[in-house]
Amino acid sequence: MPHPLAARIDAIEPFHVMRILERAHQLSAAGHDVIHLEVGEPDFATPQPIVDAGIRALQDGRTYYTPAAGIPALREAIAGHYWQRFGVKVDPARIIVTPGASGALLLALAALIGRDDEVLLTDPGYPCNRHFVALLEGRAVNIPVGPQTAYQLDETLLTRHWTPRSQAALVASPSNPTGTLLPNPAIARLNTAIRLRGGRLIVDEIYQGLVYDAPNETALAVSDELFVVNSFSKYFQMTGWRLGWLVVPTDYIPAIEKLAQNLFLSPPTVAQYAALAAFSADTHAIIEARRQILASRRDLLVAGLRRLGFSIPLMPEGAFYVWANCAALGDGEALAERLLEHAHVAITPGLDFCLHQPGDYVRFAYTTDADRIEEALLRVAKLIDARP
Amino acid sequence: MPHPLAARIDAIEPFHVMRILERAHQLSAAGHDVIHLEVGEPDFATPQPIVDAGIRALQDGRTYYTPAAGIPALREAIAGHYWQRFGVKVDPARIIVTPGASGALLLALAALIGRDDEVLLTDPGYPCNRHFVALLEGRAVNIPVGPQTAYQLDETLLTRHWTPRSQAALVASPSNPTGTLLPNPAIARLNTAIRLRGGRLIVDEIYQGLVYDAPNETALAVSDELFVVNSFSKYFQMTGWRLGWLVVPTDYIPAIEKLAQNLFLSPPTVAQYAALAAFSADTHAIIEARRQILASRRDLLVAGLRRLGFSIPLMPEGAFYVWANCAALGDGEALAERLLEHAHVAITPGLDFCLHQPGDYVRFAYTTDADRIEEALLRVAKLIDARP
Repeated sequence: MPHPLAARIDAIEPFHVMRILERAHQLSAAGHDVIHLEVGEPDFATPQPIVDAGIRALQDGRTYYTPAAGIPALREAIAGHYWQRFGVKVDPARIIVTPGASGALLLALAALIGRDDEVLLTDPGYPCNRHFVALLEGRAVNIPVGPQTAYQLDETLLTRHWTPRSQAALVASPSNPTGTLLPNPAIARLNTAIRLRGGRLIVDEIYQGLVYDAPNETALAVSDELFVVNSFSKYFQMTGWRLGWLVVPTDYIPAIEKLAQNLFLSPPTVAQYAALAAFSADTHAIIEARRQILASRRDLLVAGLRRLGFSIPLMPEGAFYVWANCAALGDGEALAERLLEHAHVAITPGLDFCLHQPGDYVRFAYTTDADRIEEALLRVAKLIDARP
Repeated sequence: MPHPLAARIDAIEPFHVMRILERAHQLSAAGHDVIHLEVGEPDFATPQPIVDAGIRALQDGRTYYTPAAGIPALREAIAGHYWQRFGVKVDPARIIVTPGASGALLLALAALIGRDDEVLLTDPGYPCNRHFVALLEGRAVNIPVGPQTAYQLDETLLTRHWTPRSQAALVASPSNPTGTLLPNPAIARLNTAIRLRGGRLIVDEIYQGLVYDAPNETALAVSDELFVVNSFSKYFQMTGWRLGWLVVPTDYIPAIEKLAQNLFLSPPTVAQYAALAAFSADTHAIIEARRQILASRRDLLVAGLRRLGFSIPLMPEGAFYVWANCAALGDGEALAERLLEHAHVAITPGLDFCLHQPGDYVRFAYTTDADRIEEALLRVAKLIDARP
């Protein structure tokens, strides 16, 4: 144990899936054909109009710092996107462009959460959320949620867990790892309950647009008193560019701007100019076609897993994940290891996403082709039949 | 005042120079010819070999996440740089590529500083340092330093200010805003004194390479028990790409890697592939020529300011800043405002860099051409003569 080491380090876990990934690379290097269903990243390359805009930006010498909150043209383009896609007016001054949604989460939590302040989170949920809270010396309240609330917070859970130290709740729609949504009427009820208690709601819309049956919504239609985190990574398939944004209530703009100046200086410049092409008709046509591909992969994977004995009580409506209960088949971590070693299928153990009953779950990502998903299902079937 | 608001927000200041910048833009828009001596960014575009490598990376589809600690090729290239330029062997596993040096500072401080733990900093110094400490609920100990210690910490200051709560000291060589160095023998004495007390030294080498008379050094030659923060922004002129790195003692690698996974996911991908060209002979020739241009600008600016009555007791040996005592000419903030309004010369008030005697200092950056610096000196001379 090195010295000195901040106490928070104990509370922050590495991604357990990294061990899976490392072993998968070893197996591939040894000549095995590994099917990857563990990766939280679209397999699609960034749409060509965005790449072309990035190349033009470099040719034009766009290599200097930008304003800390992002270039005005991009903040206006994002506001335009909210208006055109959702009919919601958002003042561009409320839109802060960030280094990935990670940057947006850090800004929102740093403004809201002081030492020992509490943030209500879902369990399962995106693990970095509670680690950001640990970074800030706050307290993450990990609330077990199940299929009866679509793995989301509701007013009953909120009321039960809110204390005088609670300052915020963070929800995600669509959610990672469950793929479930929190429709706007439910957001409105949560927001009202939180505002009555003097807190703020943060809505993670990182997977916005990647919805398959339900309408595509934004919580900004509900209230301008909540925070919205978004990203160019998933729907716009710009993961490696590291670009996201945060929409903040007007009275938080000065606090968020000085945080952004001090923590980041500015978001990546080339990515910002490239992202101007994300809202074009050409890009839209590409990502809409890909969304339909994702929908059919989801149908294939969910049906296949259910046949194999995984319990998936709710059809995931968004993102590109299936949160599968594997209790009937064994411990999730052991199952993930057996699948990798003997079937060469890589998945993520539930351990990475929940503190409550982690052994009962695994996450499958449909970020690979349908024929590979079919092959993976065959291999899983063979492995399960072969169990002693 | 919005509610809730974390207490730390009060401790974090915006960049005061932003008001100067905004007013400078207004004056430019109104047709005035503003000379910029306030900007902490090289005026040189990113060297063409690096831009070309970035364009190739985009053409090759390098748009996905990378490992959280950076692509292995870049970590090895940085290790190669330490070997070739400084004769120092650094295990690539100790090199963590980050989203800017800002990311590196956050990682180092998050690993070292728990709540109420102290970090010793110089005053004047880079203001974001103490704001990162506030983010982490630590305590920044801002130690007034003057020309007698080259605006750097020494053992006497360290011993006087170190307490049982102190965990680290952070020094910069070359320093922003003073341009002074901390030679390796002095680093060695500080490091020994800190290690004896169970703490760790962090050395900010963001301006490494931009030195004009003294030898170009790295603190890694002194010890492998200290942290080194570096960046592609200044010497390699890649500001907008947002890429830096952190060198960590071996026993801190697991803590730093899990922090990087959770806080950043990965550094910007295109920037990482572009930076592979930063260590080429072509790039070296370009930045070496630019370094010599900066040296002659420094000589011109320092001599001119001294003639005008600014006190600059030490010739700045690195970075691209002059930290000038303006006590003989009036309050620094008022002077910066008068220079901007009446001479259209933009500089940074000392307020942005120190809590101790901020009114006595201003910072000039020589990030503009020699003829513009000469013109600025003429304008300043005229304004000062015109004083009542």
